[in-house]
Amino acid sequence: MITSPGNVRIKSIVRMQQKARARREADAFLAEGIKMFLEAPVERIREVYLSESFSCSEEGKKRAVMEKLAALSCETVSSEVFRKISDTCSPQGILCVVEAFHYTFPDLLKSKNPLLLILEDIQDPGNVGTMIRTGEGAGIDGVIFAGESADVYNSKAVRATMGSVYRVPFVYVEKAGDAIQKLQKNKIRVYAAHLKGEKEYDACDYRCGSAFLIGNEGNGLRAQTAALADMYMKIPMAGKVESLNAGAAAAILMYEAARQRRKGI
Amino acid sequence: MITSPGNVRIKSIVRMQQKARARREADAFLAEGIKMFLEAPVERIREVYLSESFSCSEEGKKRAVMEKLAALSCETVSSEVFRKISDTCSPQGILCVVEAFHYTFPDLLKSKNPLLLILEDIQDPGNVGTMIRTGEGAGIDGVIFAGESADVYNSKAVRATMGSVYRVPFVYVEKAGDAIQKLQKNKIRVYAAHLKGEKEYDACDYRCGSAFLIGNEGNGLRAQTAALADMYMKIPMAGKVESLNAGAAAAILMYEAARQRRKGI
Repeated sequence: MITSPGNVRIKSIVRMQQKARARREADAFLAEGIKMFLEAPVERIREVYLSESFSCSEEGKKRAVMEKLAALSCETVSSEVFRKISDTCSPQGILCVVEAFHYTFPDLLKSKNPLLLILEDIQDPGNVGTMIRTGEGAGIDGVIFAGESADVYNSKAVRATMGSVYRVPFVYVEKAGDAIQKLQKNKIRVYAAHLKGEKEYDACDYRCGSAFLIGNEGNGLRAQTAALADMYMKIPMAGKVESLNAGAAAAILMYEAARQRRKGI
Repeated sequence: MITSPGNVRIKSIVRMQQKARARREADAFLAEGIKMFLEAPVERIREVYLSESFSCSEEGKKRAVMEKLAALSCETVSSEVFRKISDTCSPQGILCVVEAFHYTFPDLLKSKNPLLLILEDIQDPGNVGTMIRTGEGAGIDGVIFAGESADVYNSKAVRATMGSVYRVPFVYVEKAGDAIQKLQKNKIRVYAAHLKGEKEYDACDYRCGSAFLIGNEGNGLRAQTAALADMYMKIPMAGKVESLNAGAAAAILMYEAARQRRKGI
């Protein structure tokens, strides 16, 4: 059992918890909690840390954890050490190091009519994670991160995905414009929710290849990015609301696309 | 200018920042930042605190702030004191104390076909605030908070509303069941998104009085609350997603109702 916070492996985990660079260097990310451990692809799990005080009140889940652990090498750590490597206030006592995914652009374009999300300068890791989770639910093919977006592998983002981080392909690009042009070459229409939008979002047809541009929480899309969109549309807002939260807007757009694709209208 | 963090008024603001009880006792809440100050109903603003280093780069907004301040009494405080009363990492340098709103149930039922949100045990203040903001955008008539829900007047919640806290009526009830029965007596149908739901959410008609039940982020609705719903429906989820984030689910449902009401289908 590891009982020293000064242990070299523990120090490396703490660095990965804190720094995107440490995660990139390790080519891995941290996934914490029972659900995240259970959903992690077993062939990608490099290390597992279990708190000496790990327990699980749900019998079925506990058995599933034990079965999965049997096939892996697992390090027990003291409760104090676990608190150090954990990113949560009430840790569930299990954390694993998962090998990073590496997707390429074509991975996002495999289906006949791709549905994509382009996130530019989304700063809040929780927002990033939630959008990936909602995106998987809506059946999107992938996410393109552009500009100064938060790291998908930030622990708050990973947690907010509730497991979708293992399944939704994503790529990072420096400039949204490059990605938009690639999409357009592949006959994917790029939509931006915008104050200048004239058409209501639910009057557009998203059954063909479609991508939604979502901009920064405070400032929206960069002007040069918005200018490249094929279409501006608006999400009607009652009252005195000037804009919606980025995650709410993304949810509304992606589920409208899902609705049209499911219902054929 | 107030320069001492020990000043009695400053100490009272700090308490209001930290404790729901202090806000209830003061019958007021704190609203921070330029947008929140500008949108606050002037007759409800009790006090305004301005940091000595307050500045605003947007000329129009700065003028609006100055015009509004002219009609109010305003206390200048040192930058250090402002950091103490602020809830944000990069304070904009303006904070006001706003008299609490007191709504009653009939305030939520004024329109012919009310659209309502019932939030049970929503713990995250940011989620609460975002749902109020999205709700105003979708044109809801009000929010009912039940059980152990976060305080609307928590500073994170207030900030996440982006001003909707001044405009969307809400009530707190101890048990969701009491509110549900009142709604049903008023011919409002109560819908719960639920794993047991058979009908897809977009196959229900929300043009008559409708209320959406949204449960706790981790555990969903309490069983006895879900049992009182008139209808279970489901939000279809692709991939391996088991549930959506509460704010995303609320956004999807409220905007589907808004879409039906706008388009007449």
